[in-house]
Amino acid sequence: MNDLISSMQATHPREFTVGGSAVDPAALAECLAACVECAQTCTTCADACLSEDMVADLVGCIRLNATCADICAATASVLSRRPEGDAAYLRSLLEACRDVCERCAQECGSHAEMHEHCKVCAEACRRCAKACADLLSALG
Amino acid sequence: MNDLISSMQATHPREFTVGGSAVDPAALAECLAACVECAQTCTTCADACLSEDMVADLVGCIRLNATCADICAATASVLSRRPEGDAAYLRSLLEACRDVCERCAQECGSHAEMHEHCKVCAEACRRCAKACADLLSALG
Amino acid sequence: MNDLISSMQATHPREFTVGGSAVDPAALAECLAACVECAQTCTTCADACLSEDMVADLVGCIRLNATCADICAATASVLSRRPEGDAAYLRSLLEACRDVCERCAQECGSHAEMHEHCKVCAEACRRCAKACADLLSALG
Amino acid sequence: MNDLISSMQATHPREFTVGGSAVDPAALAECLAACVECAQTCTTCADACLSEDMVADLVGCIRLNATCADICAATASVLSRRPEGDAAYLRSLLEACRDVCERCAQECGSHAEMHEHCKVCAEACRRCAKACADLLSALG
Repeated sequence: MNDLISSMQATHPREFTVGGSAVDPAALAECLAACVECAQTCTTCADACLSEDMVADLVGCIRLNATCADICAATASVLSRRPEGDAAYLRSLLEACRDVCERCAQECGSHAEMHEHCKVCAEACRRCAKACADLLSALG
Repeated sequence: MNDLISSMQATHPREFTVGGSAVDPAALAECLAACVECAQTCTTCADACLSEDMVADLVGCIRLNATCADICAATASVLSRRPEGDAAYLRSLLEACRDVCERCAQECGSHAEMHEHCKVCAEACRRCAKACADLLSALG
Repeated sequence: MNDLISSMQATHPREFTVGGSAVDPAALAECLAACVECAQTCTTCADACLSEDMVADLVGCIRLNATCADICAATASVLSRRPEGDAAYLRSLLEACRDVCERCAQECGSHAEMHEHCKVCAEACRRCAKACADLLSALG
Repeated sequence: MNDLISSMQATHPREFTVGGSAVDPAALAECLAACVECAQTCTTCADACLSEDMVADLVGCIRLNATCADICAATASVLSRRPEGDAAYLRSLLEACRDVCERCAQECGSHAEMHEHCKVCAEACRRCAKACADLLSALG
Protein backbone atom coordinates (compact mmCIF):
# COMPACT_ATOMS: atom_id res chain seq x y z
CA MET A 1 0.00 0.00 0.00
CA ASN A 2 2.80 2.47 0.89
CA ASP A 3 4.47 1.81 -2.47
CA LEU A 4 1.33 2.53 -4.48
CA ILE A 5 0.55 5.61 -2.37
CA SER A 6 4.10 6.94 -2.65
CA SER A 7 4.24 6.46 -6.41
CA MET A 8 0.79 8.02 -6.81
CA GLN A 9 1.75 11.01 -4.65
CA ALA A 10 4.94 11.42 -6.72
CA THR A 11 2.83 11.88 -9.87
CA HIS A 12 0.82 14.79 -8.42
CA PRO A 13 1.43 17.95 -10.45
CA ARG A 14 0.85 20.37 -7.54
CA GLU A 15 3.14 20.71 -4.53
CA PHE A 16 1.52 20.17 -1.12
CA THR A 17 2.30 23.15 1.09
CA VAL A 18 0.74 24.17 4.39
CA GLY A 19 1.37 27.71 5.66
CA GLY A 20 3.95 28.15 2.91
CA SER A 21 6.13 25.12 3.78
CA ALA A 22 6.28 21.92 1.74
CA VAL A 23 4.76 18.86 3.43
CA ASP A 24 7.28 16.02 3.88
CA PRO A 25 6.39 13.35 1.25
CA ALA A 26 7.38 10.40 3.47
CA ALA A 27 5.29 11.62 6.42
CA LEU A 28 2.36 12.22 4.06
CA ALA A 29 2.58 8.78 2.42
CA GLU A 30 2.87 7.05 5.79
CA CYS A 31 -0.13 8.94 7.18
CA LEU A 32 -2.22 8.18 4.09
CA ALA A 33 -1.35 4.48 4.18
CA ALA A 34 -1.96 4.25 7.94
CA CYS A 35 -5.35 5.98 7.68
CA VAL A 36 -6.51 3.75 4.84
CA GLU A 37 -5.40 0.56 6.61
CA CYS A 38 -6.83 1.65 9.95
CA ALA A 39 -10.21 2.49 8.42
CA GLN A 40 -10.40 -0.90 6.74
CA THR A 41 -9.20 -2.78 9.86
CA CYS A 42 -11.63 -0.98 12.20
CA THR A 43 -14.62 -1.71 9.94
CA THR A 44 -13.67 -5.40 9.98
CA CYS A 45 -13.04 -5.41 13.73
CA ALA A 46 -16.46 -3.86 14.40
CA ASP A 47 -18.14 -6.71 12.53
CA ALA A 48 -15.91 -9.34 14.11
CA CYS A 49 -16.80 -7.99 17.59
CA LEU A 50 -20.47 -7.99 16.57
CA SER A 51 -20.09 -11.69 15.74
CA GLU A 52 -18.68 -12.69 19.16
CA ASP A 53 -20.88 -14.48 21.69
CA MET A 54 -19.98 -11.86 24.27
CA VAL A 55 -21.15 -8.99 22.03
CA ALA A 56 -22.83 -7.28 25.00
CA ASP A 57 -19.38 -6.64 26.50
CA LEU A 58 -18.05 -5.22 23.24
CA VAL A 59 -20.57 -2.50 22.39
CA GLY A 60 -18.17 0.32 23.35
CA CYS A 61 -15.52 -1.23 21.13
CA ILE A 62 -17.89 -1.64 18.18
CA ARG A 63 -19.00 1.99 18.46
CA LEU A 64 -15.42 3.27 18.67
CA ASN A 65 -14.32 1.06 15.76
CA ALA A 66 -17.02 2.49 13.51
CA THR A 67 -16.21 6.07 14.51
CA CYS A 68 -12.47 5.52 14.12
CA ALA A 69 -13.09 4.11 10.62
CA ASP A 70 -15.15 7.16 9.63
CA ILE A 71 -12.55 9.67 10.84
CA CYS A 72 -9.61 7.76 9.30
CA ALA A 73 -11.40 7.50 5.94
CA ALA A 74 -12.22 11.22 5.92
CA THR A 75 -8.63 12.09 6.89
CA ALA A 76 -7.23 9.98 4.04
CA SER A 77 -9.54 11.63 1.50
CA VAL A 78 -8.82 15.14 2.75
CA LEU A 79 -5.03 14.57 2.74
CA SER A 80 -5.24 13.13 -0.78
CA ARG A 81 -6.61 16.48 -1.98
CA ARG A 82 -3.63 18.49 -0.66
CA PRO A 83 -5.49 21.29 1.15
CA GLU A 84 -4.29 24.80 0.36
CA GLY A 85 -3.53 27.87 2.48
CA ASP A 86 -3.10 27.60 6.23
CA ALA A 87 -5.51 24.65 6.31
CA ALA A 88 -6.41 25.08 9.99
CA TYR A 89 -9.11 22.46 9.53
CA LEU A 90 -6.49 19.93 8.45
CA ARG A 91 -4.69 20.25 11.77
CA SER A 92 -7.93 19.81 13.72
CA LEU A 93 -8.84 16.81 11.61
CA LEU A 94 -5.42 15.22 12.16
CA GLU A 95 -5.78 15.85 15.90
CA ALA A 96 -9.21 14.22 15.87
CA CYS A 97 -7.79 11.26 13.94
CA ARG A 98 -4.79 10.89 16.26
CA ASP A 99 -7.01 11.05 19.35
CA VAL A 100 -9.69 8.63 18.19
CA CYS A 101 -6.99 6.16 17.06
CA GLU A 102 -5.36 6.37 20.51
CA ARG A 103 -8.72 5.75 22.18
CA CYS A 104 -9.50 2.85 19.86
CA ALA A 105 -6.01 1.36 20.34
CA GLN A 106 -6.58 1.49 24.11
CA GLU A 107 -10.05 -0.06 23.87
CA CYS A 108 -9.08 -2.84 21.43
CA GLY A 109 -5.81 -3.36 23.30
CA SER A 110 -7.69 -3.99 26.54
CA HIS A 111 -9.15 -7.24 25.12
CA ALA A 112 -6.41 -8.10 22.64
CA GLU A 113 -5.67 -11.31 24.49
CA MET A 114 -9.20 -12.58 24.09
CA HIS A 115 -9.80 -11.48 20.52
CA GLU A 116 -7.13 -11.72 17.84
CA HIS A 117 -9.02 -9.18 15.66
CA CYS A 118 -8.78 -6.62 18.45
CA LYS A 119 -5.04 -7.27 18.71
CA VAL A 120 -4.47 -6.67 14.99
CA CYS A 121 -6.79 -3.65 15.11
CA ALA A 122 -5.00 -2.10 18.11
CA GLU A 123 -1.75 -2.27 16.15
CA ALA A 124 -3.30 -0.58 13.12
CA CYS A 125 -4.72 2.14 15.40
CA ARG A 126 -1.36 2.71 17.09
CA ARG A 127 0.40 3.01 13.77
CA CYS A 128 -2.20 5.52 12.58
CA ALA A 129 -2.10 7.60 15.78
CA LYS A 130 1.68 7.86 15.43
CA ALA A 131 1.49 8.71 11.72
CA CYS A 132 -1.01 11.53 12.42
CA ALA A 133 1.16 12.86 15.28
CA ASP A 134 4.25 12.74 13.05
CA LEU A 135 2.51 14.54 10.20
CA LEU A 136 1.24 17.19 12.63
CA SER A 137 4.84 17.75 13.78
CA ALA A 138 6.01 17.87 10.18
CA LEU A 139 3.41 20.56 9.41
CA GLY A 140 5.19 22.76 11.96
CA MET B 1 -34.88 16.66 7.75
CA ASN B 2 -34.75 18.27 11.22
CA ASP B 3 -38.07 16.63 12.12
CA LEU B 4 -36.92 13.14 11.15
CA ILE B 5 -33.59 13.63 12.90
CA SER B 6 -35.20 14.98 16.07
CA SER B 7 -37.72 12.15 16.26
CA MET B 8 -34.99 9.59 15.57
CA GLN B 9 -32.74 11.09 18.25
CA ALA B 10 -35.65 11.03 20.70
CA THR B 11 -35.94 7.25 20.28
CA HIS B 12 -32.30 6.61 21.25
CA PRO B 13 -32.16 4.49 24.42
CA ARG B 14 -28.82 5.92 25.66
CA GLU B 15 -28.30 9.48 26.84
CA PHE B 16 -25.63 11.50 25.01
CA THR B 17 -23.23 12.94 27.55
CA VAL B 18 -19.82 14.49 27.06
CA GLY B 19 -17.58 14.97 30.08
CA GLY B 20 -20.51 14.05 32.32
CA SER B 21 -22.97 16.65 31.00
CA ALA B 22 -25.95 15.90 28.81
CA VAL B 23 -25.70 17.20 25.23
CA ASP B 24 -28.51 19.63 24.35
CA PRO B 25 -30.93 17.72 22.03
CA ALA B 26 -31.84 20.78 19.95
CA ALA B 27 -28.19 21.72 19.33
CA LEU B 28 -27.44 18.11 18.44
CA ALA B 29 -30.36 17.77 16.00
CA GLU B 30 -29.53 21.09 14.33
CA CYS B 31 -25.86 20.11 13.94
CA LEU B 32 -26.78 16.69 12.52
CA ALA B 33 -29.24 18.17 10.03
CA ALA B 34 -26.82 20.93 9.01
CA CYS B 35 -23.95 18.46 8.47
CA VAL B 36 -26.08 16.12 6.38
CA GLU B 37 -27.44 18.94 4.23
CA CYS B 38 -24.05 20.60 3.84
CA ALA B 39 -22.40 17.34 2.75
CA GLN B 40 -25.08 16.75 0.13
CA THR B 41 -25.02 20.36 -1.09
CA CYS B 42 -21.22 20.49 -1.35
CA THR B 43 -21.07 17.26 -3.38
CA THR B 44 -23.59 18.73 -5.80
CA CYS B 45 -21.82 22.10 -5.93
CA ALA B 46 -18.51 20.40 -6.76
CA ASP B 47 -20.08 18.71 -9.76
CA ALA B 48 -21.95 21.84 -10.82
CA CYS B 49 -18.67 23.82 -10.71
CA LEU B 50 -17.01 21.04 -12.69
CA SER B 51 -19.71 21.51 -15.35
CA GLU B 52 -19.14 25.26 -15.79
CA ASP B 53 -17.27 26.59 -18.84
CA MET B 54 -14.92 28.49 -16.54
CA VAL B 55 -13.96 25.33 -14.62
CA ALA B 56 -10.28 26.38 -14.62
CA ASP B 57 -11.20 29.28 -12.30
CA LEU B 58 -13.14 27.02 -9.95
CA VAL B 59 -10.63 24.28 -9.10
CA GLY B 60 -10.03 25.63 -5.58
CA CYS B 61 -13.78 25.68 -4.99
CA ILE B 62 -14.25 22.12 -6.30
CA ARG B 63 -11.46 20.84 -4.05
CA LEU B 64 -12.85 22.61 -1.00
CA ASN B 65 -16.40 21.42 -1.73
CA ALA B 66 -15.27 17.78 -1.84
CA THR B 67 -13.27 18.12 1.36
CA CYS B 68 -16.09 19.94 3.13
CA ALA B 69 -18.49 17.16 2.11
CA ASP B 70 -16.16 14.48 3.50
CA ILE B 71 -15.71 16.22 6.86
CA CYS B 72 -19.43 17.04 7.23
CA ALA B 73 -20.42 13.44 6.43
CA ALA B 74 -17.94 12.05 8.95
CA THR B 75 -19.11 14.52 11.60
CA ALA B 76 -22.75 13.52 11.09
CA SER B 77 -21.90 9.81 11.43
CA VAL B 78 -19.75 10.32 14.51
CA LEU B 79 -22.38 12.49 16.23
CA SER B 80 -25.07 9.91 15.42
CA ARG B 81 -23.13 7.37 17.47
CA ARG B 82 -23.12 9.51 20.64
CA PRO B 83 -19.43 9.28 21.58
CA GLU B 84 -18.71 8.40 25.18
CA GLY B 85 -16.31 9.74 27.82
CA ASP B 86 -14.57 13.09 27.36
CA ALA B 87 -14.60 12.56 23.59
CA ALA B 88 -11.71 14.95 22.91
CA TYR B 89 -11.73 13.79 19.30
CA LEU B 90 -15.33 14.96 18.93
CA ARG B 91 -14.34 18.54 19.79
CA SER B 92 -11.45 18.47 17.31
CA LEU B 93 -13.72 17.04 14.64
CA LEU B 94 -16.36 19.72 15.27
CA GLU B 95 -13.64 22.38 15.07
CA ALA B 96 -12.42 20.93 11.78
CA CYS B 97 -16.00 20.88 10.48
CA ARG B 98 -16.71 24.46 11.60
CA ASP B 99 -13.46 25.71 10.04
CA VAL B 100 -13.79 23.94 6.70
CA CYS B 101 -17.42 25.10 6.42
CA GLU B 102 -16.32 28.70 7.06
CA ARG B 103 -13.63 28.42 4.41
CA CYS B 104 -16.04 26.85 1.93
CA ALA B 105 -18.70 29.48 2.68
CA GLN B 106 -16.11 32.17 1.94
CA GLU B 107 -14.94 30.51 -1.27
CA CYS B 108 -18.43 29.76 -2.61
CA GLY B 109 -19.63 33.16 -1.39
CA SER B 110 -16.94 34.90 -3.43
CA HIS B 111 -18.60 33.81 -6.68
CA ALA B 112 -22.18 33.50 -5.48
CA GLU B 113 -23.30 36.21 -7.87
CA MET B 114 -22.05 34.29 -10.89
CA HIS B 115 -23.16 30.80 -9.88
CA GLU B 116 -26.47 30.16 -8.16
CA HIS B 117 -25.21 26.74 -6.92
CA CYS B 118 -22.36 28.47 -5.08
CA LYS B 119 -24.86 30.86 -3.50
CA VAL B 120 -27.04 28.02 -2.18
CA CYS B 121 -23.93 26.11 -1.10
CA ALA B 122 -22.46 29.09 0.77
CA GLU B 123 -25.69 29.30 2.78
CA ALA B 124 -25.58 25.59 3.65
CA CYS B 125 -21.92 25.99 4.72
CA ARG B 126 -22.70 29.04 6.88
CA ARG B 127 -25.55 27.21 8.59
CA CYS B 128 -23.29 24.22 9.26
CA ALA B 129 -20.39 26.34 10.56
CA LYS B 130 -22.79 28.00 13.00
CA ALA B 131 -24.35 24.69 14.07
CA CYS B 132 -20.90 23.22 14.81
CA ALA B 133 -19.87 26.34 16.74
CA ASP B 134 -23.12 26.24 18.73
CA LEU B 135 -22.73 22.56 19.56
CA LEU B 136 -19.12 23.16 20.64
CA SER B 137 -20.37 25.89 23.01
CA ALA B 138 -23.11 23.58 24.28
CA LEU B 139 -20.51 20.90 25.04
CA GLY B 140 -18.91 23.37 27.46
CA MET C 1 -34.45 18.45 2.68
CA ASN C 2 -36.39 17.91 -0.58
CA ASP C 3 -36.68 21.69 -1.04
CA LEU C 4 -32.95 22.30 -0.65
CA ILE C 5 -32.12 19.36 -2.89
CA SER C 6 -34.62 20.42 -5.57
CA SER C 7 -33.38 23.99 -5.60
CA MET C 8 -29.77 22.84 -5.67
CA GLN C 9 -30.48 20.44 -8.54
CA ALA C 10 -32.23 23.24 -10.42
CA THR C 11 -29.01 25.29 -10.36
CA HIS C 12 -26.92 22.57 -12.02
CA PRO C 13 -25.59 23.82 -15.38
CA ARG C 14 -25.47 20.37 -17.01
CA GLU C 15 -28.53 18.31 -17.91
CA PHE C 16 -28.70 14.80 -16.39
CA THR C 17 -29.26 12.29 -19.18
CA VAL C 18 -28.91 8.51 -19.11
CA GLY C 19 -28.80 6.65 -22.43
CA GLY C 20 -29.76 9.88 -24.19
CA SER C 21 -32.96 10.59 -22.21
CA ALA C 22 -33.33 13.31 -19.58
CA VAL C 23 -33.71 12.08 -15.99
CA ASP C 24 -36.96 13.20 -14.37
CA PRO C 25 -36.05 15.99 -11.88
CA ALA C 26 -38.75 15.06 -9.35
CA ALA C 27 -37.73 11.38 -9.28
CA LEU C 28 -34.09 12.41 -8.92
CA ALA C 29 -34.74 14.85 -6.06
CA GLU C 30 -36.92 12.33 -4.22
CA CYS C 31 -34.28 9.60 -4.59
CA LEU C 32 -31.50 11.92 -3.40
CA ALA C 33 -33.50 13.07 -0.37
CA ALA C 34 -34.56 9.52 0.49
CA CYS C 35 -30.99 8.19 0.25
CA VAL C 36 -29.59 10.96 2.43
CA GLU C 37 -32.30 10.52 5.07
CA CYS C 38 -32.05 6.73 5.03
CA ALA C 39 -28.26 6.80 5.46
CA GLN C 40 -28.54 9.14 8.43
CA THR C 41 -31.44 7.19 9.99
CA CYS C 42 -29.72 3.81 9.59
CA THR C 43 -26.49 5.05 11.21
CA THR C 44 -28.51 6.27 14.18
CA CYS C 45 -30.57 3.07 14.35
CA ALA C 46 -27.40 0.95 14.39
CA ASP C 47 -26.15 2.84 17.43
CA ALA C 48 -29.55 2.79 19.13
CA CYS C 49 -29.74 -1.00 18.65
CA LEU C 50 -26.20 -1.28 19.99
CA SER C 51 -27.40 0.53 23.12
CA GLU C 52 -30.29 -1.85 23.83
CA ASP C 53 -30.02 -4.42 26.63
CA MET C 54 -30.95 -7.14 24.18
CA VAL C 55 -28.12 -6.22 21.79
CA ALA C 56 -27.30 -9.91 21.23
CA ASP C 57 -30.65 -10.30 19.44
CA LEU C 58 -30.02 -7.27 17.25
CA VAL C 59 -26.64 -8.02 15.68
CA GLY C 60 -28.14 -8.83 12.28
CA CYS C 61 -30.06 -5.55 12.37
CA ILE C 62 -26.96 -3.54 13.36
CA ARG C 63 -24.93 -5.07 10.53
CA LEU C 64 -27.66 -4.43 7.97
CA ASN C 65 -28.16 -0.86 9.21
CA ALA C 66 -24.48 -0.06 8.74
CA THR C 67 -24.41 -1.61 5.28
CA CYS C 68 -27.62 0.12 4.23
CA ALA C 69 -26.16 3.45 5.39
CA ASP C 70 -23.00 2.90 3.31
CA ILE C 71 -24.88 2.01 0.14
CA CYS C 72 -27.41 4.86 0.52
CA ALA C 73 -24.61 7.39 1.10
CA ALA C 74 -22.68 6.20 -1.96
CA THR C 75 -25.85 6.27 -4.07
CA ALA C 76 -26.60 9.87 -3.03
CA SER C 77 -23.06 10.99 -3.90
CA VAL C 78 -23.04 9.19 -7.25
CA LEU C 79 -26.46 10.58 -8.24
CA SER C 80 -25.34 14.09 -7.25
CA ARG C 81 -22.60 13.87 -9.87
CA ARG C 82 -25.02 13.14 -12.76
CA PRO C 83 -23.23 10.16 -14.35
CA GLU C 84 -22.79 10.35 -18.11
CA GLY C 85 -23.28 7.90 -20.97
CA ASP C 86 -25.25 4.70 -20.50
CA ALA C 87 -24.19 4.58 -16.83
CA ALA C 88 -24.75 0.85 -16.44
CA TYR C 89 -23.11 1.06 -13.01
CA LEU C 90 -25.75 3.55 -11.89
CA ARG C 91 -28.53 1.03 -12.54
CA SER C 92 -26.68 -1.70 -10.63
CA LEU C 93 -26.02 0.70 -7.76
CA LEU C 94 -29.69 1.73 -7.62
CA GLU C 95 -30.68 -1.97 -7.64
CA ALA C 96 -28.27 -2.64 -4.77
CA CYS C 97 -29.68 0.33 -2.88
CA ARG C 98 -33.30 -0.69 -3.49
CA ASP C 99 -32.58 -4.27 -2.41
CA VAL C 100 -30.62 -3.47 0.74
CA CYS C 101 -33.28 -0.94 1.78
CA GLU C 102 -35.99 -3.58 1.32
CA ARG C 103 -34.00 -6.06 3.42
CA CYS C 104 -33.35 -3.46 6.10
CA ALA C 105 -36.99 -2.37 6.13
CA GLN C 106 -37.99 -6.01 6.65
CA GLU C 107 -35.43 -6.53 9.42
CA CYS C 108 -36.19 -3.30 11.29
CA GLY C 109 -39.90 -3.79 10.66
CA SER C 110 -39.79 -7.19 12.36
CA HIS C 111 -39.05 -5.56 15.74
CA ALA C 112 -40.67 -2.18 15.15
CA GLU C 113 -43.11 -2.80 17.97
CA MET C 114 -40.34 -3.26 20.50
CA HIS C 115 -38.04 -0.48 19.34
CA GLU C 116 -39.33 2.89 18.17
CA HIS C 117 -36.00 3.59 16.39
CA CYS C 118 -36.49 0.48 14.27
CA LYS C 119 -40.01 1.63 13.42
CA VAL C 120 -38.81 5.04 12.21
CA CYS C 121 -35.89 3.41 10.41
CA ALA C 122 -38.11 0.88 8.63
CA GLU C 123 -40.16 3.76 7.25
CA ALA C 124 -37.06 5.59 5.99
CA CYS C 125 -35.87 2.35 4.34
CA ARG C 126 -39.24 1.75 2.67
CA ARG C 127 -39.32 5.30 1.33
CA CYS C 128 -35.79 4.87 -0.04
CA ALA C 129 -36.47 1.46 -1.61
CA LYS C 130 -39.49 2.96 -3.40
CA ALA C 131 -37.55 6.05 -4.51
CA CYS C 132 -34.79 3.87 -6.01
CA ALA C 133 -37.33 1.64 -7.75
CA ASP C 134 -39.13 4.70 -9.14
CA LEU C 135 -35.91 6.26 -10.40
CA LEU C 136 -34.93 2.97 -12.03
CA SER C 137 -38.29 2.95 -13.85
CA ALA C 138 -37.82 6.59 -14.83
CA LEU C 139 -34.39 5.74 -16.34
CA GLY C 140 -36.23 3.41 -18.74
CA MET D 1 -2.25 -4.31 2.37
CA ASN D 2 -3.22 -7.84 1.23
CA ASP D 3 -1.28 -9.32 4.15
CA LEU D 4 -3.01 -7.16 6.77
CA ILE D 5 -6.40 -7.78 5.17
CA SER D 6 -5.84 -11.54 4.95
CA SER D 7 -4.69 -11.82 8.55
CA MET D 8 -7.59 -9.62 9.71
CA GLN D 9 -10.10 -11.70 7.74
CA ALA D 10 -8.62 -14.88 9.24
CA THR D 11 -9.45 -13.63 12.75
CA HIS D 12 -13.15 -13.16 11.98
CA PRO D 13 -15.25 -15.47 14.20
CA ARG D 14 -18.11 -15.86 11.71
CA GLU D 15 -17.86 -17.68 8.39
CA PHE D 16 -18.76 -15.66 5.28
CA THR D 17 -21.36 -17.58 3.30
CA VAL D 18 -23.57 -16.40 0.45
CA GLY D 19 -26.54 -18.54 -0.54
CA GLY D 20 -25.23 -21.28 1.75
CA SER D 21 -21.73 -21.57 0.19
CA ALA D 22 -18.54 -20.34 1.83
CA VAL D 23 -16.90 -17.34 0.14
CA ASP D 24 -13.35 -18.07 -1.05
CA PRO D 25 -10.99 -16.27 1.40
CA ALA D 26 -8.36 -15.45 -1.24
CA ALA D 27 -10.92 -13.93 -3.64
CA LEU D 28 -12.41 -11.95 -0.75
CA ALA D 29 -9.04 -10.60 0.46
CA GLU D 30 -8.00 -9.64 -3.07
CA CYS D 31 -11.31 -7.85 -3.70
CA LEU D 32 -11.08 -5.98 -0.38
CA ALA D 33 -7.48 -4.90 -1.01
CA ALA D 34 -8.24 -3.90 -4.61
CA CYS D 35 -11.29 -1.82 -3.58
CA VAL D 36 -9.40 -0.02 -0.81
CA GLU D 37 -6.44 0.78 -3.08
CA CYS D 38 -8.64 1.82 -6.00
CA ALA D 39 -10.69 4.18 -3.81
CA GLN D 40 -7.54 5.84 -2.49
CA THR D 41 -5.92 6.03 -5.94
CA CYS D 42 -9.03 7.48 -7.61
CA THR D 43 -9.40 10.21 -4.95
CA THR D 44 -5.78 11.21 -5.55
CA CYS D 45 -6.14 11.05 -9.34
CA ALA D 46 -9.20 13.32 -9.21
CA ASP D 47 -7.21 15.97 -7.38
CA ALA D 48 -4.16 15.51 -9.59
CA CYS D 49 -6.36 15.98 -12.70
CA LEU D 50 -7.90 19.04 -11.06
CA SER D 51 -4.38 20.46 -10.70
CA GLU D 52 -3.45 20.09 -14.38
CA ASP D 53 -3.39 23.14 -16.67
CA MET D 54 -5.69 21.33 -19.07
CA VAL D 55 -8.33 20.69 -16.39
CA ALA D 56 -11.12 21.62 -18.81
CA ASP D 57 -10.31 18.48 -20.82
CA LEU D 58 -10.35 16.28 -17.73
CA VAL D 59 -13.74 17.02 -16.16
CA GLY D 60 -15.21 13.68 -17.23
CA CYS D 61 -12.24 11.90 -15.70
CA ILE D 62 -12.48 13.85 -12.42
CA ARG D 63 -16.18 13.06 -12.12
CA LEU D 64 -15.65 9.37 -12.84
CA ASN D 65 -12.70 9.18 -10.41
CA ALA D 66 -14.80 10.58 -7.58
CA THR D 67 -17.69 8.23 -8.32
CA CYS D 68 -15.39 5.22 -8.66
CA ALA D 69 -13.84 6.09 -5.28
CA ASP D 70 -17.28 6.27 -3.62
CA ILE D 71 -18.44 2.91 -5.00
CA CYS D 72 -15.13 1.15 -4.22
CA ALA D 73 -15.14 2.47 -0.64
CA ALA D 74 -18.74 1.35 -0.09
CA THR D 75 -17.99 -2.08 -1.57
CA ALA D 76 -14.99 -2.55 0.75
CA SER D 77 -17.06 -1.63 3.81
CA VAL D 78 -19.98 -3.86 2.83
CA LEU D 79 -17.69 -6.85 2.09
CA SER D 80 -15.93 -6.32 5.44
CA ARG D 81 -19.24 -6.92 7.20
CA ARG D 82 -19.84 -10.32 5.59
CA PRO D 83 -23.44 -9.93 4.43
CA GLU D 84 -25.78 -12.77 5.34
CA GLY D 85 -28.44 -14.73 3.42
CA ASP D 86 -28.67 -14.58 -0.35
CA ALA D 87 -27.27 -11.03 -0.28
CA ALA D 88 -28.71 -10.06 -3.67
CA TYR D 89 -27.63 -6.49 -3.01
CA LEU D 90 -24.00 -7.65 -2.68
CA ARG D 91 -24.04 -9.01 -6.22
CA SER D 92 -25.54 -5.79 -7.61
CA LEU D 93 -22.99 -3.73 -5.69
CA LEU D 94 -20.10 -5.85 -6.99
CA GLU D 95 -21.48 -5.45 -10.53
CA ALA D 96 -21.67 -1.69 -10.06
CA CYS D 97 -18.11 -1.67 -8.73
CA ARG D 98 -16.79 -3.84 -11.57
CA ASP D 99 -18.52 -1.67 -14.19
CA VAL D 100 -17.49 1.71 -12.81
CA CYS D 101 -13.89 0.48 -12.45
CA GLU D 102 -13.91 -0.66 -16.09
CA ARG D 103 -15.24 2.71 -17.20
CA CYS D 104 -12.70 4.57 -15.09
CA ALA D 105 -9.85 2.35 -16.34
CA GLN D 106 -10.90 3.17 -19.90
CA GLU D 107 -11.16 6.90 -19.23
CA CYS D 108 -7.87 7.17 -17.30
CA GLY D 109 -6.21 4.80 -19.77
CA SER D 110 -7.12 7.08 -22.67
CA HIS D 111 -4.76 9.79 -21.37
CA ALA D 112 -2.28 7.59 -19.52
CA GLU D 113 0.52 8.70 -21.80
CA MET D 114 0.03 12.35 -20.89
CA HIS D 115 -0.58 11.96 -17.17
CA GLU D 116 1.36 9.48 -15.06
CA HIS D 117 -1.32 9.64 -12.32
CA CYS D 118 -3.93 8.46 -14.83
CA LYS D 119 -1.65 5.59 -15.82
CA VAL D 120 -1.24 4.41 -12.22
CA CYS D 121 -4.97 4.93 -11.61
CA ALA D 122 -5.98 2.95 -14.69
CA GLU D 123 -3.97 0.01 -13.37
CA ALA D 124 -5.64 0.20 -9.95
CA CYS D 125 -9.05 0.33 -11.64
CA ARG D 126 -8.25 -2.67 -13.86
CA ARG D 127 -7.10 -4.70 -10.86
CA CYS D 128 -10.29 -3.81 -8.98
CA ALA D 129 -12.60 -4.58 -11.91
CA LYS D 130 -10.99 -8.00 -12.22
CA ALA D 131 -11.16 -8.65 -8.46
CA CYS D 132 -14.88 -7.81 -8.41
CA ALA D 133 -15.51 -10.03 -11.45
CA ASP D 134 -13.57 -12.89 -9.84
CA LEU D 135 -15.44 -12.56 -6.56
CA LEU D 136 -18.76 -12.52 -8.42
CA SER D 137 -17.74 -15.78 -10.14
CA ALA D 138 -16.67 -17.24 -6.81
CA LEU D 139 -20.08 -16.40 -5.31
CA GLY D 140 -21.60 -18.75 -7.92
